[in-house]
Amino acid sequence: MVDITQKQSTHRTAVAQAVVKVSSKSTLDAIEAGTVPKGNVFEISRAAGFLAVKKTADLLPDCHPLPVEYCGIDYEIKGMEIVINITIKTFYKTGVEVEAMHGASVVALNMYDMLKPIDKGVEIHHIKLLKKTGGKSDIEND
Amino acid sequence: MVDITQKQSTHRTAVAQAVVKVSSKSTLDAIEAGTVPKGNVFEISRAAGFLAVKKTADLLPDCHPLPVEYCGIDYEIKGMEIVINITIKTFYKTGVEVEAMHGASVVALNMYDMLKPIDKGVEIHHIKLLKKTGGKSDIEND
Amino acid sequence: MVDITQKQSTHRTAVAQAVVKVSSKSTLDAIEAGTVPKGNVFEISRAAGFLAVKKTADLLPDCHPLPVEYCGIDYEIKGMEIVINITIKTFYKTGVEVEAMHGASVVALNMYDMLKPIDKGVEIHHIKLLKKTGGKSDIEND
Amino acid sequence: MVDITQKQSTHRTAVAQAVVKVSSKSTLDAIEAGTVPKGNVFEISRAAGFLAVKKTADLLPDCHPLPVEYCGIDYEIKGMEIVINITIKTFYKTGVEVEAMHGASVVALNMYDMLKPIDKGVEIHHIKLLKKTGGKSDIEND
Amino acid sequence: MVDITQKQSTHRTAVAQAVVKVSSKSTLDAIEAGTVPKGNVFEISRAAGFLAVKKTADLLPDCHPLPVEYCGIDYEIKGMEIVINITIKTFYKTGVEVEAMHGASVVALNMYDMLKPIDKGVEIHHIKLLKKTGGKSDIEND
Amino acid sequence: MVDITQKQSTHRTAVAQAVVKVSSKSTLDAIEAGTVPKGNVFEISRAAGFLAVKKTADLLPDCHPLPVEYCGIDYEIKGMEIVINITIKTFYKTGVEVEAMHGASVVALNMYDMLKPIDKGVEIHHIKLLKKTGGKSDIEND
Repeated sequence: MVDITQKQSTHRTAVAQAVVKVSSKSTLDAIEAGTVPKGNVFEISRAAGFLAVKKTADLLPDCHPLPVEYCGIDYEIKGMEIVINITIKTFYKTGVEVEAMHGASVVALNMYDMLKPIDKGVEIHHIKLLKKTGGKSDIEND
Repeated sequence: MVDITQKQSTHRTAVAQAVVKVSSKSTLDAIEAGTVPKGNVFEISRAAGFLAVKKTADLLPDCHPLPVEYCGIDYEIKGMEIVINITIKTFYKTGVEVEAMHGASVVALNMYDMLKPIDKGVEIHHIKLLKKTGGKSDIEND
Repeated sequence: MVDITQKQSTHRTAVAQAVVKVSSKSTLDAIEAGTVPKGNVFEISRAAGFLAVKKTADLLPDCHPLPVEYCGIDYEIKGMEIVINITIKTFYKTGVEVEAMHGASVVALNMYDMLKPIDKGVEIHHIKLLKKTGGKSDIEND
Repeated sequence: MVDITQKQSTHRTAVAQAVVKVSSKSTLDAIEAGTVPKGNVFEISRAAGFLAVKKTADLLPDCHPLPVEYCGIDYEIKGMEIVINITIKTFYKTGVEVEAMHGASVVALNMYDMLKPIDKGVEIHHIKLLKKTGGKSDIEND
Repeated sequence: MVDITQKQSTHRTAVAQAVVKVSSKSTLDAIEAGTVPKGNVFEISRAAGFLAVKKTADLLPDCHPLPVEYCGIDYEIKGMEIVINITIKTFYKTGVEVEAMHGASVVALNMYDMLKPIDKGVEIHHIKLLKKTGGKSDIEND
Repeated sequence: MVDITQKQSTHRTAVAQAVVKVSSKSTLDAIEAGTVPKGNVFEISRAAGFLAVKKTADLLPDCHPLPVEYCGIDYEIKGMEIVINITIKTFYKTGVEVEAMHGASVVALNMYDMLKPIDKGVEIHHIKLLKKTGGKSDIEND
């Protein structure tokens, strides 16, 4: 584990993205109409994502525990894809990129789990870091 | 949550895959030479994956807790990609697809976390179910 | 911890109830209109409840871990009260009363947490077992 | 999740209360005589409460993780009721009300769990915040 | 992880032992008189041990999750040593030795944690398996 | 729980040690040759240890949660013994001795778990604090 005892706390933000692709337009219709048998896909996944972000250091051995001070998740539907964007902020000695990536992956997995009974073709496409501020270098990916 | 009290236990297997793409051949060389500063990427990620599989129901609200009776993880390097295959087995009333997908995603995330200091361009490509046996229908995806 | 190794598995159900009392009709209006700043109170609380039920043995020292095979949560608004009913089922050697009570309490706490910024007078009234079947004796409380 | 990155840390205290009502004087006698078959009710419940307080952000999606810097639990018997008072302190950007409420609820649930074999009529009455200092406004409820 | 899907469930028992050595007779006196500032050492440690046993598979990557169906902890004082014996039982496909060893170690660590303020010389001596029944071979160590 | 709200953060280090004794030279040979059936003993145990250190406050009721800012684990083979040394650092109001002891114990237990199938005589000898800096008094044990 990297030794961060001597580092200064700074404001840190990370934005990560995961993409869930459904195989049928009717799956998206069911989500929006609130008729997915397992329940409200967007809200249950949001809750799962918030909790997952806070458990990141519990799952990744080398990851430092840190105070998650903001988490926001939004969804956008583009064709057959649900685009998940998650933003994490902290004021600490190390960044929140992995927390954002982990949150995005659990939101995507939870959608997969909830949609499985009505759509056997759901796939999780890339999970990637979109943006990072604070720390040694800012990053902006498109 | 789906009511599974009346279902019969059967043998269940699921194989999931995640792909981690590095941006430089030197990253793969460092993994194989054991010179990644954060440590042994394949083994630490395997440990993280084993533990993550067992925590799946702790992260996904609708997911039933179940006895994970086998977990195996192997790695294959193809060009600039590390292909992670994970196999889960149980003898229970419901399948282990989501457990396999969750394990694959955490192995991939852990690689991302450990490689981040030496390669800023690591990406997690698809996370998908390759195979499933037991339950109402078998699935084989290529 | 009670020794249950020699007990037989039977079908078990428990229904528990918690009551959350708000101090203003406008709080209930905000929940129903989806305008609570912290988000969708009913769905986020449902997700929290599902996960909490599965963590019961993780919080209560004497409680046996058991396979939660069904969890359902519904809400009813009566005057200024939100009545939370939660049903848990399993097929195991011991009952799910405490799991139901724990789920009800976390749903109620989560409502308290999400409503706190808009209503300083939210209270959690009783948490009680409504019904239990399976095991040595059935119970029905009104 | 509320964004607290720009807030200042201050000293925060919260006191919450839960009330457990037993159905027979003999239950209280058994607790005091140390003859409850499941063990020492007050001490096991205290341990469960301490651990639960630290897991609050693990159970409530919107709740910020924070450094629990003090936790104290005391019990008072009034007639047929066991009154549980729990005090939490921190020096952080957000309050500990929900942590105190969660701790109180788990102490009460653990009593319910341990007393169930000897008293079928145990009930958990209100869980409420008694007092809060630090943050925008102090609160004192009676 | 060993594949246990084809194994039969049998009754399993394991007894493990840990030894905590204090540096002064006054430490033992304080435990027995209930005057240790951090509280009731034996009961808080018992609660910690019960919970730890149930978390074993959460800490050890290769360990199968299993239904802990009995846990008992007792203490014996021999000279300057506190001898902790812990018994675990299950009816499952694999044994509970590691669960017993883990429980014993956490009971011992918790004593260390609670006694530290009054005795700087507390040591944890061996943690060992005393006995195991069920599975391919019984073991009895003295 | 000790009230640490008024304490100042300082740099803290703790080094703990656990000793695992195997019963046969061939066990050590298998570890070094990488032929232990359960996998890479040193690396999987290191991952388990890193995660365990971060879960200490989750297992020990009186233990304050704290930001683990460094964790390092190394191994030394002396005759038939594997000596595990673990170093933890933080910048906080309370020390990391118990975190180091807990990490050492889980590394040792994980070795026991992974070696059990090839060596029935593995024992965990002492778990002790070697060194501590920061706080009221430094300690150095040999």
